[in-house]
Amino acid sequence: MRASTYPLVDAAEAAALVLERTPVLPAEDVALADCPGRALTDDLIAPAQLPPFAASAVDGFAIRSADGGGRLRVAGESAAGRPFTEDLPAGAAARILTGGVLPPGADTVVMVEEVEQGDGWVTVPGGFPAGRNFHRPGDDLRQGEVVVARGEPLGPAEVGLAAALGFPQLRVHGRPRVALMSTGDELVEVGQRPGPGQIVDSNRWALLAALAEAGAAVTLLGVAPDRPEPLRELVVDALRHHDVLVTSGGVSVGTHDLVKPLLESLGEVHLGRVRLKPGKPFTFATLPSGRLAFGLPGFPVSSLITFEVFVRPALRKMLGFARTQRPALPVRMGYDASAAGDRTEYQRVALRREGGELVAVSTGSQSSSRLMSLAGAHALVKVPPGGTGIAAGTVVEAIILSLPI
Amino acid sequence: MRASTYPLVDAAEAAALVLERTPVLPAEDVALADCPGRALTDDLIAPAQLPPFAASAVDGFAIRSADGGGRLRVAGESAAGRPFTEDLPAGAAARILTGGVLPPGADTVVMVEEVEQGDGWVTVPGGFPAGRNFHRPGDDLRQGEVVVARGEPLGPAEVGLAAALGFPQLRVHGRPRVALMSTGDELVEVGQRPGPGQIVDSNRWALLAALAEAGAAVTLLGVAPDRPEPLRELVVDALRHHDVLVTSGGVSVGTHDLVKPLLESLGEVHLGRVRLKPGKPFTFATLPSGRLAFGLPGFPVSSLITFEVFVRPALRKMLGFARTQRPALPVRMGYDASAAGDRTEYQRVALRREGGELVAVSTGSQSSSRLMSLAGAHALVKVPPGGTGIAAGTVVEAIILSLPI
Repeated sequence: MRASTYPLVDAAEAAALVLERTPVLPAEDVALADCPGRALTDDLIAPAQLPPFAASAVDGFAIRSADGGGRLRVAGESAAGRPFTEDLPAGAAARILTGGVLPPGADTVVMVEEVEQGDGWVTVPGGFPAGRNFHRPGDDLRQGEVVVARGEPLGPAEVGLAAALGFPQLRVHGRPRVALMSTGDELVEVGQRPGPGQIVDSNRWALLAALAEAGAAVTLLGVAPDRPEPLRELVVDALRHHDVLVTSGGVSVGTHDLVKPLLESLGEVHLGRVRLKPGKPFTFATLPSGRLAFGLPGFPVSSLITFEVFVRPALRKMLGFARTQRPALPVRMGYDASAAGDRTEYQRVALRREGGELVAVSTGSQSSSRLMSLAGAHALVKVPPGGTGIAAGTVVEAIILSLPI
Repeated sequence: MRASTYPLVDAAEAAALVLERTPVLPAEDVALADCPGRALTDDLIAPAQLPPFAASAVDGFAIRSADGGGRLRVAGESAAGRPFTEDLPAGAAARILTGGVLPPGADTVVMVEEVEQGDGWVTVPGGFPAGRNFHRPGDDLRQGEVVVARGEPLGPAEVGLAAALGFPQLRVHGRPRVALMSTGDELVEVGQRPGPGQIVDSNRWALLAALAEAGAAVTLLGVAPDRPEPLRELVVDALRHHDVLVTSGGVSVGTHDLVKPLLESLGEVHLGRVRLKPGKPFTFATLPSGRLAFGLPGFPVSSLITFEVFVRPALRKMLGFARTQRPALPVRMGYDASAAGDRTEYQRVALRREGGELVAVSTGSQSSSRLMSLAGAHALVKVPPGGTGIAAGTVVEAIILSLPI
């Protein structure tokens, strides 16, 4: 057994290195239903204006405003999809329904609540102004306008706009295909009873959830074989069909660790140790094919924190997002956070509202094996290495995982 | 054509009524992989402690601390899953790997970096304290501790904890099955060229994205038939196999609207008009079976805002979440928001960071047909009815849809 010979790399430097080596995935055409959570490869430009025609905003009567104050003959109806196509004669009104086309000649719409109706006639108030209660062509969107910028997340409104403009599919960046593998002789499947010294493989399920949330398509490889040759075969095959390999465990310096030597033989190991707490044995490699391999430490918190710091931003970059990082908000420290020697520490905190402020409360023992420190955590507070940590009362930028109500 | 006879109900009152009439869905057992985004029906209690045994936090040597300072014989190895089961003799050390069981008799672990190794021996520093570098049984979780409370969202850490405790599946509330239908003679399918007065059915895709984000399982029914009998058959059948029907369009007072009369004949229409802008013609009905029907207005922004105000909280309640509302944060108004007569208005805003504050910037024209007002919107600002609106500079609680970086 020997101490690791990998240099200890500063956490921020390591994160920058990973992002730099991460490719943006190629374009693919995706049906609207599958577009949410993706990012466009190019700005979406409106090929036409919206609405395409003058459309009533209400149910009522389309008239010439000059005819207000009199009893008007009802000359017909303009329902959505069934326009009144002739010129509206002077002294006449057309029934119009919400979404209906404003008939040629009409210049205003009177709401049904404001008229008096009879058999074939309608009386509208006098002095009713022109230009009321309808949307003009181009009011909602001008032709040539940027509807959604490349790299922005596609959500309900963006997808709705694309549909309204006639795009049944959009060109977005590919979704990273990730192969997920656990390593460790001590692991048993969930549902099996662990023997002496054994534990359940829990990282698989935590990382599967984290990968899916980040937008990856995940293949579960299960627990890795504990002999070098079958392991090599599995990994080589997985990296043929996936953009990313994520392993957890098997990256510390124990004599039984097989992951790092394998990655060294397959490609270039850029990182083998980082000044990060938890997560020091984090490993990152690239293959000649451009594919990525992340070796996450085996302790549950270490695996999820290194996922947050290194893997999630890489996946977001692959997906083509302009912003690869989680949002940050100022929070007031509700406790003294001590520094972790020469390592950047990501402390897990719950957030509480106090007046207009968010206050960070520790989730308890920050041990790398204590997953309860992440359960219900709303944010991560980055405590810089060295120095005296962060005193209670200080306002810091916290990395937001979720918001309390 | 007549004005609506439904009473105008205050928006907050209407939202409370919807929630009150919304059932929580029954329990189902779901595999861990499908648990993220669900909520437990009962608190998850730890049936055993974690870790189950004293486990090394590092790679190194397990010793009796009293033996520090001397050269110790290496008596064996305790690797993860392959414990050293005998009593560690005095004057001896056991190689121990991260996650390995602390051998009986050993009371501390010395990191590999701190020792000198030879052939079958190891020298450890003198005065090395007991209790270092290992996790005690129960350190991470005590037996009987509440791991995840009912009603809390299940994420990576929660799912990982459940796996570590041996649960391959969890009992969660059901996922709402939603049938989504568009109505309107003017609608054509995306990809088809609209004729005069026609528009593309865009609400289907926007609402599909919004429903999926809220956690619903959606069936697309397409555009509704425009005759009463086929429409009735479709709706009756859909409500046999779904918990919720969501329609968009067809709920204003036009002579061709079929949705409200149909819902009246099938169940009880509780709401037919609300004091909400946009979204006044919002309709809500319950069926004798307990199933829900939401009639959303046809204008794109109206349909998404009524979804946010009424449908999303109902879906979150069905899923069993303790919190049914989106998070709120204080934001400073960056513009003057005028009040919309007697209606509560949900204005769409982008958020900008200015120092420690979030500042709300209007997304432009707030017309109910202008979906661009929701594209890239980070939050909704609720402007109360009557009065003078909200002046620039005022701090309000905004409903957060997403956060800027």
